[in-house]
Amino acid sequence: MNEREYIRSLAVQSTCPDILRGMGDDCAVIGKGSGLVQLLSLDTMVEGVHFDRSFHPPDLLGRKLVSVNVSDIAAMGGRPTLLLLSSGLPPGFDEAWVLAFNRGLHAACRDYGCTLVGGDTVASPGGFCFSLTILGEMAAGEVLYRSGAQQGDALYVSGNLGFAAAGLALLQADRAGCAPDFAPLVDRHLNPEARVALGQQLAASGLVHAMMDSSDGPASDVAQLCAASGLGARIFADRLPASNILTEAARLLDANPQDWMLKGGEDFELLFTAAPEHDTALRAIARKCGLRLTPIGCMDAGAGLRLVAGDGRDSPLDYQGYEHFCEPGL
Amino acid sequence: MNEREYIRSLAVQSTCPDILRGMGDDCAVIGKGSGLVQLLSLDTMVEGVHFDRSFHPPDLLGRKLVSVNVSDIAAMGGRPTLLLLSSGLPPGFDEAWVLAFNRGLHAACRDYGCTLVGGDTVASPGGFCFSLTILGEMAAGEVLYRSGAQQGDALYVSGNLGFAAAGLALLQADRAGCAPDFAPLVDRHLNPEARVALGQQLAASGLVHAMMDSSDGPASDVAQLCAASGLGARIFADRLPASNILTEAARLLDANPQDWMLKGGEDFELLFTAAPEHDTALRAIARKCGLRLTPIGCMDAGAGLRLVAGDGRDSPLDYQGYEHFCEPGL
Repeated sequence: MNEREYIRSLAVQSTCPDILRGMGDDCAVIGKGSGLVQLLSLDTMVEGVHFDRSFHPPDLLGRKLVSVNVSDIAAMGGRPTLLLLSSGLPPGFDEAWVLAFNRGLHAACRDYGCTLVGGDTVASPGGFCFSLTILGEMAAGEVLYRSGAQQGDALYVSGNLGFAAAGLALLQADRAGCAPDFAPLVDRHLNPEARVALGQQLAASGLVHAMMDSSDGPASDVAQLCAASGLGARIFADRLPASNILTEAARLLDANPQDWMLKGGEDFELLFTAAPEHDTALRAIARKCGLRLTPIGCMDAGAGLRLVAGDGRDSPLDYQGYEHFCEPGL
Repeated sequence: MNEREYIRSLAVQSTCPDILRGMGDDCAVIGKGSGLVQLLSLDTMVEGVHFDRSFHPPDLLGRKLVSVNVSDIAAMGGRPTLLLLSSGLPPGFDEAWVLAFNRGLHAACRDYGCTLVGGDTVASPGGFCFSLTILGEMAAGEVLYRSGAQQGDALYVSGNLGFAAAGLALLQADRAGCAPDFAPLVDRHLNPEARVALGQQLAASGLVHAMMDSSDGPASDVAQLCAASGLGARIFADRLPASNILTEAARLLDANPQDWMLKGGEDFELLFTAAPEHDTALRAIARKCGLRLTPIGCMDAGAGLRLVAGDGRDSPLDYQGYEHFCEPGL
């Protein structure tokens, strides 16, 4: 049983008319009247699986837990409101570390405009384990699902791809301090930012058909968007957002920057589709949010995701992203 | 740092007017308009800390996770609506066990009338770990907080006390199958039931001043109710709900049944306070729900919780309940 099969075993058909969307998107979507919906999501981070305390400062880790959850709200176009935290603390845990973690978490709540209202604490024999539940809200008519993509849509990504994977690789290789300054890569792993303003403005624009956040890398994420929309897609290798610093890091570590971009994950950028004629308007929205926008592909009839190389030849891109059940390490 | 100090380090003053209650009660309480509030809570169960797979059938464990969460909703007088599940699964986990767990969880959702709408799954190096977030709702004017107790109130408990602790002790001693039939004790540990109907009817009656669920045992729970209400309380040892089967189990295991009742926890009964003149009406409500009601004490001026022995002498009862940070075992 892999992760997706497990999730399928949990999914049930709901008979409650308020549940507009249960599992299968970045958030569950619940009608709450007055033209609003409530968004619900949850993310768990386990020590040794999702984070390494040897190089992750606790305040940034607390902040990252919030950002990762807020990113799910941003992926629908919503605004985060409330949080609940489950803290699993190992025997004899370092109090100063935990207090710094909580400070980072609270600072992130303030920055994103949401409030921690509850939670529980338990002993955790296997190291630190944090699970955060997030609530958000937005106008019912503006919710952007993964399933709304249309044939002929352009496929966009905000900001940069591969930065988090490159930053993690640098940290793991103990090369984060090398010249040139790799701070943008390392920061993306340690302290990613949820694209809340961009998500809200894209949703309000009415120009976007489908959206999700890039948590596992486009090779996995876009494949899910394709499946949800009943379409196929092509990603063009030479249109991926280029970056000198990523190339430099790849050279230093003898890695493939395209793999980082397509399969690295944890960039928490927004992936979305829209009709190509809105390109100028969409770029203007992103510019207002201080982010570049890159059309990396297009939505096709058919099924499946293909990567088109620089020479025009295409091949299937069926990487399944981070598979928690198979890869116990970071 | 103990558990309560940790929770205090997380609590922040909210400036959001919709947050009627953040941390410090069984649920957070959020205004949602139209005279309704939303209730939010979260509970985590860690293998080796909260459950022992050697004697806990997976379907009953899935059911218990739901019941424990629903009990927090019942403790405010509310009705459960939605759930989100975080599943931490160890490497090479037993698929049949997990599918049975999920079946039990779904069956409990159906029985309580709530729906699982989301979640995530992660690898868990330290054994199974499940965190469930629950949402509920109720009329804004009927919410029963821990802080509403009044001087002179009678202190009631529904059903039985000490059953879960006795059941767990029997299971751990491998004596669960002994005569007499200890099923009611063992069942209370393996498969407790949230008192949703009773909680709702007590809240709707307008007769109750303060309520919570008995998750850590009255010695700890009533102390929290006292602190929240700015009052003291006395519990009368000879008024605790007597039970032959509990006495039999204590004799078999050479244990103290009063300790099970006061300090055992996990009974998930309702503890509440009301003016003594409503005794008949309150008992009628409980009877309709198939539960007995026992007035085990009274709320006093002052602070702190005291236990009054059969000879009339009283002594402080300051047990702090299950302390997750100090007791890594079950």
